Amino acid sequence: MDNPALVDVTRGTVIESLHRGSIAIVDSAGKLVFGIGNVESRVFPRSAIKALQALPLVESGAAEALDYSDAELALACASHNGEEVHANSARVMLMKAGLAEDNLECGPQWPQRMEDAAKLILADESPCGLHNNCSGKHAGFLGLAKVMGVETRGYVNAEHPVQREVRNVMEQMTGDTLSEDVCGTDGCSIPTYASPLRSFARAFAAFGTGEGLEPLRAEAAERLFDACINEPYMVAGTGRFCTRVMEAFRGRVFVKTGAEGVFCASIPELGFGVALKCDDGATRASEVMMATVLEAMLELNDDEAALLDGLVNPPILTRVGIQAGHIKPREEFLTELKAALP
Amino acid sequence: MDNPALVDVTRGTVIESLHRGSIAIVDSAGKLVFGIGNVESRVFPRSAIKALQALPLVESGAAEALDYSDAELALACASHNGEEVHANSARVMLMKAGLAEDNLECGPQWPQRMEDAAKLILADESPCGLHNNCSGKHAGFLGLAKVMGVETRGYVNAEHPVQREVRNVMEQMTGDTLSEDVCGTDGCSIPTYASPLRSFARAFAAFGTGEGLEPLRAEAAERLFDACINEPYMVAGTGRFCTRVMEAFRGRVFVKTGAEGVFCASIPELGFGVALKCDDGATRASEVMMATVLEAMLELNDDEAALLDGLVNPPILTRVGIQAGHIKPREEFLTELKAALP
Repeated sequence: MDNPALVDVTRGTVIESLHRGSIAIVDSAGKLVFGIGNVESRVFPRSAIKALQALPLVESGAAEALDYSDAELALACASHNGEEVHANSARVMLMKAGLAEDNLECGPQWPQRMEDAAKLILADESPCGLHNNCSGKHAGFLGLAKVMGVETRGYVNAEHPVQREVRNVMEQMTGDTLSEDVCGTDGCSIPTYASPLRSFARAFAAFGTGEGLEPLRAEAAERLFDACINEPYMVAGTGRFCTRVMEAFRGRVFVKTGAEGVFCASIPELGFGVALKCDDGATRASEVMMATVLEAMLELNDDEAALLDGLVNPPILTRVGIQAGHIKPREEFLTELKAALP
Repeated sequence: MDNPALVDVTRGTVIESLHRGSIAIVDSAGKLVFGIGNVESRVFPRSAIKALQALPLVESGAAEALDYSDAELALACASHNGEEVHANSARVMLMKAGLAEDNLECGPQWPQRMEDAAKLILADESPCGLHNNCSGKHAGFLGLAKVMGVETRGYVNAEHPVQREVRNVMEQMTGDTLSEDVCGTDGCSIPTYASPLRSFARAFAAFGTGEGLEPLRAEAAERLFDACINEPYMVAGTGRFCTRVMEAFRGRVFVKTGAEGVFCASIPELGFGVALKCDDGATRASEVMMATVLEAMLELNDDEAALLDGLVNPPILTRVGIQAGHIKPREEFLTELKAALP
């Protein structure tokens, strides 16, 4: 099945590029509330499920044993910019587990923003694993390994006890069976398992409401949800979609981006989980798709409306800052979405 | 009409993302030799037609009057990395016209590569118009304005004599009428006119062969073609597709990338012009599409084959450099292409 065009990129009066995709919205009973495109074909969730991958860290008691703060738990769920505060917090997470930067197996990455890269350059430093956007997740995996009393080395491999725990939790949250043939290697070297979008939406409905979860898991989900809401800057950073939305919505939504155009969300007041993917992997489109879903689904106050307005229709700028076009959701997509939702 | 999926992005054994697109290949008589997807709908050519936009500079005699070298003419056709050599050459082009960096109206841009950005940061400098990937094109526009004896200020506006010249040449080369309603503003502030891919392919067939062109224009096209072939580093820079292909093919092909997934080429030995666009604007896909076309169309020596092999199937790497998947052309696309070509 071909997924429909959901987002246009215009220049002048011409559509210059377009993005196709699929979206699943599921309620806490697991029912598909809205589906566009193919929501049953398997997609890699990439970083959009980091909050679910952090569940074992919390429900095992490891996060408490290591005295991880809200900011550190938010970092465990983050795809951060590699700003100083992110790298330093990842370092502290490792220290709390008696570990250090060279235990990270995620590989180095330059900070996302030139300002932060410049700080490293001027200090004659190279980026390291701490600057990798996944460093908090990896520090959390290492902390869990340490508290479990298992070998930390190789914690990124699918057979390692930490990754086996993570896979078990993902199977339970998605209701899907995750076998080797749907396993790929993520950019930070851990396994990523492809499941239907619908299954990820189901998982995030449960994550945001606790419904259908064992008490210990529901408590862990709440702890991670609250940590991200309390410390949205740690989940992404300056100027980033996830940070801005969670800051503005003050607990009404949890949102998390992933590579290759994936985005997931929990909306507890509606009991909904959302999972979407842009076919071609473009983040600019997955962001517009998510902003459009939030705008259609929620009653907004002025601040929330002003923020979403910009995120639903981001401008395309020239290098002198003049607007040359914009990115925007297709009319048909808006119509279908509005017809389906409360 | 929906354009077909031409390029897959895999991770493990799963297709993670896909890219749709269209391709037109036209011979020097203007006949469509191969078309896939909609080759009649209008697309913005963006930077892929810089070599055509440089024709007035050469055929007016301005390039000769200003004593522009091959390297400088190649820079006029370039989307460069903003490396030191690129910025310096743009500065020299301006100096030869009695102008300077503050005459550029393209806006600043950080160099593409962190190594080059680091040089600026360590020298406590900010990027300026010279580092803009279009600075050579703009220096050429300014040089032409100077030799024409017109006001240089506002040379980026559609009504300026330089842009009117450029539009005339584009109309003649494409055989298309370029009105305001198909005009957008490019990222560097100049007008960009949307035409069918087929028309751009026609223009590049003529550019590479001179066939059907007035002698003065044919001579100008040859001069620019040769300049890019002789100085491929100036057209893009370290590690870039255009530079690597033109270096390896030693005059057999001219290739030029543009923003939003456009790519154009001239293949004089076949008399062909090529124009393609990835629907969603992804460069990673337009590069694979162009490499696939070149591999299918040409008899290759070992060096050419080795280079294209990597460009047709680029790996997707983790941050520690392990291959997690690859980008590759679809089988159906390869089959259709091979059936249509010599």
